[in-house]
Amino acid sequence: MFTLGNVLRLTIFGSSHGELVGSTIDGFPVGFRVPVDYIRRYMEYRRPGSSILTSQRKEEDDIEIVSGLHEGYTDGSPITIIIRNKNVISSYYSELRENPRPGHSDYTLFLKYGEFRNYEGGGFLSGRMTAPLVAAGAIAKAYLEGMGIRIMSYMRSIGDVECDRITGDRYNFETRMPDPECDERSRNLIMEVMKAGDSLGGRIDTIVENFPGGIGEPFFDSVESIISHAIFSIPAVKAIEFGDGFRLASMRGSEANDPFDVIDGKIVTRTNHNGGILGGITNGMPIKFSIAVKPTPSIHLPQQTVNLSTSERSTITVKGRHDPCVAIRAVPVVECLTSFVLLDLLIQSGYVNRYGKKSKRD
Amino acid sequence: MFTLGNVLRLTIFGSSHGELVGSTIDGFPVGFRVPVDYIRRYMEYRRPGSSILTSQRKEEDDIEIVSGLHEGYTDGSPITIIIRNKNVISSYYSELRENPRPGHSDYTLFLKYGEFRNYEGGGFLSGRMTAPLVAAGAIAKAYLEGMGIRIMSYMRSIGDVECDRITGDRYNFETRMPDPECDERSRNLIMEVMKAGDSLGGRIDTIVENFPGGIGEPFFDSVESIISHAIFSIPAVKAIEFGDGFRLASMRGSEANDPFDVIDGKIVTRTNHNGGILGGITNGMPIKFSIAVKPTPSIHLPQQTVNLSTSERSTITVKGRHDPCVAIRAVPVVECLTSFVLLDLLIQSGYVNRYGKKSKRD
Amino acid sequence: MFTLGNVLRLTIFGSSHGELVGSTIDGFPVGFRVPVDYIRRYMEYRRPGSSILTSQRKEEDDIEIVSGLHEGYTDGSPITIIIRNKNVISSYYSELRENPRPGHSDYTLFLKYGEFRNYEGGGFLSGRMTAPLVAAGAIAKAYLEGMGIRIMSYMRSIGDVECDRITGDRYNFETRMPDPECDERSRNLIMEVMKAGDSLGGRIDTIVENFPGGIGEPFFDSVESIISHAIFSIPAVKAIEFGDGFRLASMRGSEANDPFDVIDGKIVTRTNHNGGILGGITNGMPIKFSIAVKPTPSIHLPQQTVNLSTSERSTITVKGRHDPCVAIRAVPVVECLTSFVLLDLLIQSGYVNRYGKKSKRD
Amino acid sequence: MFTLGNVLRLTIFGSSHGELVGSTIDGFPVGFRVPVDYIRRYMEYRRPGSSILTSQRKEEDDIEIVSGLHEGYTDGSPITIIIRNKNVISSYYSELRENPRPGHSDYTLFLKYGEFRNYEGGGFLSGRMTAPLVAAGAIAKAYLEGMGIRIMSYMRSIGDVECDRITGDRYNFETRMPDPECDERSRNLIMEVMKAGDSLGGRIDTIVENFPGGIGEPFFDSVESIISHAIFSIPAVKAIEFGDGFRLASMRGSEANDPFDVIDGKIVTRTNHNGGILGGITNGMPIKFSIAVKPTPSIHLPQQTVNLSTSERSTITVKGRHDPCVAIRAVPVVECLTSFVLLDLLIQSGYVNRYGKKSKRD
Repeated sequence: MFTLGNVLRLTIFGSSHGELVGSTIDGFPVGFRVPVDYIRRYMEYRRPGSSILTSQRKEEDDIEIVSGLHEGYTDGSPITIIIRNKNVISSYYSELRENPRPGHSDYTLFLKYGEFRNYEGGGFLSGRMTAPLVAAGAIAKAYLEGMGIRIMSYMRSIGDVECDRITGDRYNFETRMPDPECDERSRNLIMEVMKAGDSLGGRIDTIVENFPGGIGEPFFDSVESIISHAIFSIPAVKAIEFGDGFRLASMRGSEANDPFDVIDGKIVTRTNHNGGILGGITNGMPIKFSIAVKPTPSIHLPQQTVNLSTSERSTITVKGRHDPCVAIRAVPVVECLTSFVLLDLLIQSGYVNRYGKKSKRD
Repeated sequence: MFTLGNVLRLTIFGSSHGELVGSTIDGFPVGFRVPVDYIRRYMEYRRPGSSILTSQRKEEDDIEIVSGLHEGYTDGSPITIIIRNKNVISSYYSELRENPRPGHSDYTLFLKYGEFRNYEGGGFLSGRMTAPLVAAGAIAKAYLEGMGIRIMSYMRSIGDVECDRITGDRYNFETRMPDPECDERSRNLIMEVMKAGDSLGGRIDTIVENFPGGIGEPFFDSVESIISHAIFSIPAVKAIEFGDGFRLASMRGSEANDPFDVIDGKIVTRTNHNGGILGGITNGMPIKFSIAVKPTPSIHLPQQTVNLSTSERSTITVKGRHDPCVAIRAVPVVECLTSFVLLDLLIQSGYVNRYGKKSKRD
Repeated sequence: MFTLGNVLRLTIFGSSHGELVGSTIDGFPVGFRVPVDYIRRYMEYRRPGSSILTSQRKEEDDIEIVSGLHEGYTDGSPITIIIRNKNVISSYYSELRENPRPGHSDYTLFLKYGEFRNYEGGGFLSGRMTAPLVAAGAIAKAYLEGMGIRIMSYMRSIGDVECDRITGDRYNFETRMPDPECDERSRNLIMEVMKAGDSLGGRIDTIVENFPGGIGEPFFDSVESIISHAIFSIPAVKAIEFGDGFRLASMRGSEANDPFDVIDGKIVTRTNHNGGILGGITNGMPIKFSIAVKPTPSIHLPQQTVNLSTSERSTITVKGRHDPCVAIRAVPVVECLTSFVLLDLLIQSGYVNRYGKKSKRD
Repeated sequence: MFTLGNVLRLTIFGSSHGELVGSTIDGFPVGFRVPVDYIRRYMEYRRPGSSILTSQRKEEDDIEIVSGLHEGYTDGSPITIIIRNKNVISSYYSELRENPRPGHSDYTLFLKYGEFRNYEGGGFLSGRMTAPLVAAGAIAKAYLEGMGIRIMSYMRSIGDVECDRITGDRYNFETRMPDPECDERSRNLIMEVMKAGDSLGGRIDTIVENFPGGIGEPFFDSVESIISHAIFSIPAVKAIEFGDGFRLASMRGSEANDPFDVIDGKIVTRTNHNGGILGGITNGMPIKFSIAVKPTPSIHLPQQTVNLSTSERSTITVKGRHDPCVAIRAVPVVECLTSFVLLDLLIQSGYVNRYGKKSKRD
């Protein structure tokens, strides 16, 4: 369904070629002054057309907060944010109606919805739906930052170019790699692959710092369960690992266990193979996870498909401008959506009291 | 919290050193003759003490179905299954109370619950809680098998021993690797590591065959979201990938996209890099995913920890018999829990009608 | 919170003096051609200013369906409907900020939200919020009518004027009493009370005909539980009874039990004291319930209140035009909201399959 | 379904003629010492066979708390309570299988579940299911009492005997009327009706004192919505009203509005026609509601029914000992279930922090 979260809940609506996309947040803490510029900045990070490396479709992505605020503060009612779709041209998609694009949801939408499927541009399963995710999640991210919690996602690899260092702000670089040299190398790769009409996947790392320990709801609402549930909603994500993830499978216990230590009177672990989570509950160390985003399925090379009316083989060549590497634009989405579900967990844990603030002086 | 699922819901209760553990299933389809022997068999697959490779703790794991059946058939009310704990000795754990074991949830339970933490043997975050997961999930698995759907998990790797072939039934082998030679090699590795007082992690692959297409609830309840949410509830799981998973991050679109084809009048994909899921919805191809289970945190080597009362460094050596590789016993858990959430999705998709069966002749 | 329903879910947003109010419906059956005129008609039934008996505030209540439809049919994604607020003047309400109106939510909003309360015109607890309830519920009502199910609410009493007969369409009469003489008498009463600056309460009866038997989810989601939960969301509703309701408390079992009978091969009950519901499940007889709506709290007489800043007694006289009897405009709200939750129950019972329709020819 | 509550959740299981009935509470505040004697006392209040006025069936109703406590304190995991069924004789019910009892759920269970219905003694819709409601709710009630909140239900009327005064503890009287003379009169009525083979309904009033203001979740989770949802789960309840309830429908605004006043620096209302709830949120005044319980459907007089196999009219005379007035035993059920949902609301409102207590000295 289109709602995420337990106490703090996000509902999204709209579709890529409809009138608008939007999100409604219920359960947000009362009395928070929503920083509209901050949300706009995150919308800009996600926006296509901002770089030659992303789709040249124009999505202006103006946000309108149409409910939930009273004199600029959250008032305890649902916050609804609307983002209008512009320059939507559907004519092209009617060609695709009968010929599902490989790697896309065209065929599964047909299986599930038959004649009623919203097929243009992926409909409501499109990457366009990440715009309302960012808008909603950015508010949560701003809230967490006000508590001193930092959430950062960045591009770890694109194709076979890996970035193993952080020397700058990922948003200063088109590829969202946090280093100029890595950025340069991966840009060159992308340009080359674009010319070949092909696309690239990537890997995004996330680190959450200064997050309190003791957060996470046992048993089924572990931090890993909650984050992975959210992250797999992002189109094209196919894998997630926490801490050392798959590498843990080939480690010994003596390597994988993080020894406890005391530093400045604070209990910490000396290593962080477990990514800040033990038994599904945070231990006060940085939360770390990494995800895989598959290559953009829309490529400009001929691909084999099957005509849904005739059930005969056919060939399709996807037209239009598409992101050569959708993972790049997923970076702010991962940050914002992670923020959203972490705030939900903080509320559930009683660490944040939704109704705790009664006065602007608090 | 302790409930999983949307329409079909599982609640578990109990703890490793309490009187019992149990599960309650609400929303199961009416009129299903529950195959008690089948559940027993799966309990046996998970049971410790059945092999030298698993903990020698005796868990007899007799299941009692105390509600939800009428004349042997599900009657539409919650199915509660109780599994009594036997031979529970807590004296040892009182030593550990103040000295959290690295890699375990001892410390995070302390952070969350303080003095009230149920600390013996991991309390309600223990591997013991997977017994009610198996009991409940085995019923769902039997139901799906009745529909012709096959769910199989098996050990893909232990430490650095990888098994890349399936030549036998995984449950015929102690390591749950589906091949005698792989089993032999990994057993030798386990024996060696056990002697060294250390432990091993592993990787479990799962394949679901003959599952219908068009299943999965957009947007936030994609098949990947639902499966990962459930699987990360299993203690020690730290990573999951669908289809080619992390390898997709370094592939090109032209490699990663699965071309459609028609075989015997049925639309299929010629490859299955996406693991049977596109846009979060099944496409009729086998669902495939792989998970990482970290090494058993209980090892017999001295480890550094911190005394919670004094906040001073201390050393702990975990005693008792523990699984050298908990991943082995997780295999049936993954199978059963996956079955449970897939049945939930089938109900939500209207593919299974909970109240569709009104007569024993249907 | 602002979401209602289990599988079919309604989220509302906005407030009486904000930019708009709206509703988002998730889980609606796919492939339904939404009858926009039908929704408009129900919006008109609820609209103030349509009669001298209702508030003269102009609410034009144009609905915009901004998502969820594809070529006019529901496409399985959330249906969002927006209704813009017009002619909103807030200046008056700033006077009321410190002096809560008796019978209103002003004081409880203050207790819950402190300085951040959305106080103008009742904010998000206002009667204005019933506009999105009608918009959303009317779609469900149209769907049920397509199945042959009829849901009718009408005014049973206003003040001490009771209407014990149905001789016409309630929507042909300003008071929503389904009889010209009752309408006349209650109109006279309302006019008189209006002149005195006072207000009236009323009683609304609802009858659902041709609803299938066997619907309702035991134990906690009985038909009575689900309907009452929804109905008490409507501002000013203070009581509900099913079938003979409170009269059953003074009846004998021999009077209250409805004897079964067979008529034309169909099992029916000869009386319907239980209002079509036994054990929380429908029995195929008409579902009947009655609710009490308290008098409009906004009256033009001086009332005692307390200044929230000074904690001293003060007096308030509410200005502006208000409905002399809000119950009148609640009639379509009850119908539509009842339709919504009944459709949710039909889906949960497997009677309606959300994904059952795949083609426009079905 | 069989789960109630949002954050604090109750799941019940079992059936009247099965092995046991039970309840599982998830989300209870951590660190509460569960008063077992207090629960036992409430179980005793509900138990049949304790008076000639109630069914002579022996239900010993020993409770076993099998999970959720650690050293006597709630530990944050689900609290499961089991109550074994004793002296269950099903032979009689096989006669009823084909002949549904008027006023009972026999027929609706047949419609919903067909051949698989759990028909003996009402199965899982039986009054027997109120035993786990009491067991679970009594814990919540004890918790609220520890906060100084008092919840009291009592019999307001039985048949036409009304009790308009409180002069003693309702549990000192067999009829749960809180006055010896009322008790005497209603006992006489019950004895007389019993002799005639008939049964009686009743009305139960509830008052909650010292409950904090500002509690209740807008919009759909108003206090009235949440309480009514829960209360209609209790078998045989057919009506509920808050404050002056149905009488409000014939009042004027000037009568119904509760004027605010200041007494000892505290804001109160001078009357309480609204039953302590305005806009769905508590205002700090006593919460008041009243419910109707229909007469026990099981009566010893011949009643007309229809044979489900032959679809022909038949006659049934219910045998066995049944409560002449089930409302009596519903009194503690209403108290306990109300306590449960009020505690859920307190948690949701941030007034009670589930994880707030970390030490036994707090």
